[in-house]
Parts: sequence; C-alpha cells; structure tokens
Amino acid sequence: MSLIEKLNWRYATKQMDASKVVPQEKIDTITEAIRLSASSMGLQPYNLLVIQDKETLAKIQPVAYNQPQITAATALVIFAAWDVATPERINKYIQLIASERGVSEESLAGFKGMIDGAVAKLDEASAFNWMARQAYIALGTGLAAAAVEGVDATPMEGFNNAALDELLNLSAKGLKSVLLMPLGYRDEAKDYLAKAKKVRKPVDELVVAL
Amino acid sequence: MSLIEKLNWRYATKQMDASKVVPQEKIDTITEAIRLSASSMGLQPYNLLVIQDKETLAKIQPVAYNQPQITAATALVIFAAWDVATPERINKYIQLIASERGVSEESLAGFKGMIDGAVAKLDEASAFNWMARQAYIALGTGLAAAAVEGVDATPMEGFNNAALDELLNLSAKGLKSVLLMPLGYRDEAKDYLAKAKKVRKPVDELVVAL
Repeated sequence: MSLIEKLNWRYATKQMDASKVVPQEKIDTITEAIRLSASSMGLQPYNLLVIQDKETLAKIQPVAYNQPQITAATALVIFAAWDVATPERINKYIQLIASERGVSEESLAGFKGMIDGAVAKLDEASAFNWMARQAYIALGTGLAAAAVEGVDATPMEGFNNAALDELLNLSAKGLKSVLLMPLGYRDEAKDYLAKAKKVRKPVDELVVAL
Repeated sequence: MSLIEKLNWRYATKQMDASKVVPQEKIDTITEAIRLSASSMGLQPYNLLVIQDKETLAKIQPVAYNQPQITAATALVIFAAWDVATPERINKYIQLIASERGVSEESLAGFKGMIDGAVAKLDEASAFNWMARQAYIALGTGLAAAAVEGVDATPMEGFNNAALDELLNLSAKGLKSVLLMPLGYRDEAKDYLAKAKKVRKPVDELVVAL
C-alpha cells in the first residue's frame, strides 16, 4: 500500500479498542521515525515520553479533557519541548556531532555559533515557541509512520499543558509538554469518525497560484 | 525499502543538481501527502505555493539568504499560513464538510462553535502562531513523502518572511509565509553533507523515563 493510501486510511481516532494491543515492535518503529525526524539545525530540542503504564494513563486522562483514547491506547507518546536551550544542551549536541562524525569540536565552532546566534536573538517565550514547532515536524513524521504501520494515532494539542507538566514533574527535566499522540487501534463500532469520509480541501484550493 | 530506511536516506540537502529534474508525478504525490496531513480540527489553515518558474525562483533566492537549493530545485514548496482565521474561512470549511459528508451545516453547529471558540480565545499573534504550527505538521508529512519518493528536500525556516510575503504579494491572499521546502536531487559531489553520517540523539536520550 502506498504512503498516500496509508495517509487516506488514517484519521484522528476518537475511540480506540482497549482490547487490541499494539505490538512493541510497532511502537518502537514509530518512535524511531520520530527520532529520525527533521529539526532546525538538527538540534531535536525536545524529548519524548512513551507512557504505557495504565495507572499513569488514568492520571493523565483528566488533564486531557477525559478523552477516552488516553486510556484505551496501548501507549501515549508525549512530545515535550525543552524549556530553555541552555548552553549545556547545545554543547551536548555539538559533542554528539563530533563523536558521530569523528571530527573535533573546534571544527564545529562556526556551526555552534550559528545555533547560539539563533537562540540568542529570541526572548525566552519565542525560543520556546521555536523549539515547540520542531516537535510539530516530529508529530507529522510520527503520524505518517503510525499510518504506515497500520497503527491508529490521535494528534492532540488540546490538553492542560501546565497541569500535565506538574503531574509528571516535567519541569525537573527542563521540559514542557507540547503535543500528545496516543497509539492504539480504532474501535470501528464506537467511533463515529471511523466510517466518515475524510475531508480535505481540494488540491486546487490548497495550492494557490501566484 | 521501509519508511525508516527512507528517513535514514534523507537529509537537509545543501546542494542540489539543477540538471536533474523531479518528475511532475512525484511533486504531485508529495503535494497530495501534504494535503492529507493532519491539522487541528482538520482546518488546514494554510496554503501552498509550488513555484517552478525559474525567474520567480531567482527572485526568491536573495530573500532566502541566497541558498543555492532555491534555484537548483525543480520546485519550491512554500507553506504560507492564514494571516487571520476569518469567519469566512471557517464557514467555508464547515460548508466543505457538509458537502463532502452529505450532512447539513446546521448539524455541524457544535463543531463550528468549537473552532470559533478555539480562535476567539487567542489574540491575533497567538492565533497566527497556532495556524503556523499546523504547517509544521504538514512539513513533517511532506518530508516523509519526499523521502519515500526518493526526492531530496530541504526544510527551511530561516528566510526573510516579510520580504518574501512582499515579493509574492501574499498579503493580498491573506497569507504569511512560514516554511520553505525545495524539492530536487542532491549533488553528491558538491554537498559536503551528502556523505556525512546522520546525527540523531540515541533513542535512550530522546525518550526519557518518568
């Protein structure tokens, strides 16, 4: 099946069947696709939490407007952006490039200066927004990967971010939650959207001429 | 080849070979993947411009820091978010759902109220930011689709947005440019990154435990 067919198959699943469990291998493949996702300057200024513990999922559900997918999913992927792009975090990235490519950190000084400059020109809120946006690219990649694996996923930005951060003590990790992506299998009988026609703008409305 | 292999193959191409032309069919498939991309409440609050005219590309290049991919690419995809989520735009979306699913607009009043509410609670800058973020999901989907098609792409957020908007008169369309994605083929001889090892955080650093 082509990627286009897979993307046509997927939708923001509203009801998942808790009795159907996504194999760990598929969850790992989706996580790997997210890991390979593009980000500005390759910085990947976010972390993932992959929550599978039922008790924790039950605690998360109320801060996500009690959406049923949170607990019916096999796993909940939380995209959490860095709160601040600290010099330590940037240094660690430079060290990773140096070690992976077998080059000196000194040879990466120009590139490091570019990252430092991109961060320095932004106030803290704008810098966070820029990092949060990178998580959206990762979400787009993750949704495509889930579709390819035949796994249902629901992109969610509507939840109480501050309450989730407090519940999971994300500030201690220097993180702020941005997006949720439960992974599971649609409940075709219960989900009114499962059989609904996918609605997208026609291509000649999406793509505009100059 | 699996999606993971394709994602490993792709990278932010710095030098493209202008003599290699991406078939129109592949550009259309990538555009179609973007069209199918997820967005908050399905609103798709952005448009695409797919620029292939060499003269226009040459004019765009200076506002994108003279990056060579702009003119060496077969096509430049511009992601431009709505400047304002006007009632007309929201109504048009509701009409599209009604006509695609064969239901009345009245039956969608609750859903429309949800969209109106989501927009109303944001000031104009925050609403724009929310719409711009949806374009990042679309970029993530588009990059995955390009990789699957074996087409090189370069995600770019670093360009002079205001100058590009003015050059292309995007304000007349109620749009503001957010992201660029040139599509072409890597020039392996000229691009120092073509043979460089892909650098990504190890999975046990990206995925953090509670």
